[in-house]
Amino acid sequence: MKLAIYGYGNLGRGVESAVKQNPDTELIGVFTRRDPSTVKTLTGVPVYAAADVLKFKDSVDVLIICGGSATDLPGMTPVLAKDFNVVDSFDTHADIPKHFAAVDAAAKETGHIALISAGWDPGMFSLNRLYASAILPEGKDYTFWGRGVSQGHSDAIRRIEGVQDARQYTVPVPKALAAVRAGETPELTTREKHTRECFVVAKPGADLAYIENAIKTMPKYFSDYDTTVTFISQEELDAHHKGIPHGGFVIRSGVTGLDKSHKHVIEYSLKLDSNPEFTSSALVAFARAINRMHGRGDVGCKTVFDIAPGDMSAMSPEELRAKML
Amino acid sequence: MKLAIYGYGNLGRGVESAVKQNPDTELIGVFTRRDPSTVKTLTGVPVYAAADVLKFKDSVDVLIICGGSATDLPGMTPVLAKDFNVVDSFDTHADIPKHFAAVDAAAKETGHIALISAGWDPGMFSLNRLYASAILPEGKDYTFWGRGVSQGHSDAIRRIEGVQDARQYTVPVPKALAAVRAGETPELTTREKHTRECFVVAKPGADLAYIENAIKTMPKYFSDYDTTVTFISQEELDAHHKGIPHGGFVIRSGVTGLDKSHKHVIEYSLKLDSNPEFTSSALVAFARAINRMHGRGDVGCKTVFDIAPGDMSAMSPEELRAKML
Repeated sequence: MKLAIYGYGNLGRGVESAVKQNPDTELIGVFTRRDPSTVKTLTGVPVYAAADVLKFKDSVDVLIICGGSATDLPGMTPVLAKDFNVVDSFDTHADIPKHFAAVDAAAKETGHIALISAGWDPGMFSLNRLYASAILPEGKDYTFWGRGVSQGHSDAIRRIEGVQDARQYTVPVPKALAAVRAGETPELTTREKHTRECFVVAKPGADLAYIENAIKTMPKYFSDYDTTVTFISQEELDAHHKGIPHGGFVIRSGVTGLDKSHKHVIEYSLKLDSNPEFTSSALVAFARAINRMHGRGDVGCKTVFDIAPGDMSAMSPEELRAKML
Repeated sequence: MKLAIYGYGNLGRGVESAVKQNPDTELIGVFTRRDPSTVKTLTGVPVYAAADVLKFKDSVDVLIICGGSATDLPGMTPVLAKDFNVVDSFDTHADIPKHFAAVDAAAKETGHIALISAGWDPGMFSLNRLYASAILPEGKDYTFWGRGVSQGHSDAIRRIEGVQDARQYTVPVPKALAAVRAGETPELTTREKHTRECFVVAKPGADLAYIENAIKTMPKYFSDYDTTVTFISQEELDAHHKGIPHGGFVIRSGVTGLDKSHKHVIEYSLKLDSNPEFTSSALVAFARAINRMHGRGDVGCKTVFDIAPGDMSAMSPEELRAKML
């Protein structure tokens, strides 16, 4: 399977590494909107200008689009789906139906296949919400995120006057997690589900009280959460907070039996040292699936809900049945 | 979707209850090899003789076969797949390829669809082994079962001379579970993964030392495990050990990145008050999927690896994308 990467940030680099772990995949090249001569890949794979991507339309089986959901993907994916089979990790949950419609129309126009919103949430977490609710229709599910770095929240802190650098961790509240895991089905407020830990490097002479207050009262991002702010040095941040770990939990508890007396708890959890590398690894497995589906004549936009799991594996159906079932 | 149950034990009763929780399903009847007049269903659904099942071939969308894997299913499923779309929970892992081949040939002969080995293991655990290995190809996975009742091991104890009744629990070793969950990839022996707890009611005057020794030295079942035997009264067993709880864990840890320096742990776990009712609930969701697949012209034998998850849900694809993704 011949893959190419469109957009070369953390996610693109993750795909490049993942290809090395999947012997049935080959990386044709990386496409960037920057000047290609300024971009050096991890493995020496060639870099091309994004503007030249159409020249490769016949030599790429699946193009993995590694752009941001806010401004890149809504424009990129529908355009590229006209000439390529594509995968993206579009993660603005509320806008998925709109993105799906645009990509579906574009892909069908030319007989291509596209998978949007692959990764872990949306992605593996979505799959687990679906499986659990299909099996236990009478129940309630909970998604907790963390402990992990939220890039969006870290960026929001960096925009405050006097802040030099910052890292924000989203942390599930242990008490809430324990209750849900025990099969209770509490109604939880935003504040009761997650706390936010901020590690902030202030510029010399900055007003620390102002920064702390600006963070804790920031609407949407922090004001609905119990937030802690810890000022640290740049050295400390670089030494202990440069990673991009993440993870979380999808838990559903439900009841069965005529008298609904039997309780069941289904839990799926991820503990990830590198959020972008895990997402990239998922993108490569999903790319394998849509390449196979396209080989069987399938076209249009898909989501992870449409992917038969066996198509994601490098193993044959016979091998899977013998070894994994 | 019109369902019928073939075989009316714990699993069949579970399907009957699950149908009540799925408004898009309807139960046509229960087929039994016993005298139908002696069988009373939980919900009053009619009971028919297994021998009469062919009379219903045009009024059932999916027949859920609730037989045992040892002697029932290898014969039943291929025969019934000639006249019905069927689902079974065949769980003899080593014999799956053979069962698959027999069911596939039978179903294709007449254009039916069949799903074998649905449930939780094989079933949801298999899916999680597959997803995790597809995403993290360089890694190692572990399946732990329990704490839960093993019917097979309980039966084995009951066959020992002097035993009146018994219940056996399979229990994961906490130390092993903790190590795997922490991302370590130990080589674990059978003994290091699970212990076996036996609660035994001895007949009056029975030789307790003989029973305990017979259990602990029983090949395959107990001799490779650290086994504890506790003698209790029938009243105590009836009061505290009549349930059929089960569950377990599928955990894979793997590495990503060019230098493989980032570790990831994926964990899926189940905590089930009733093993048969959870399995039945899964069977109904999988029955929904194969009914839809058959409606699209799909025939032959399938496993859970072939099922696009969206087909298991009562929700429409649009609703799933808007609410679950």
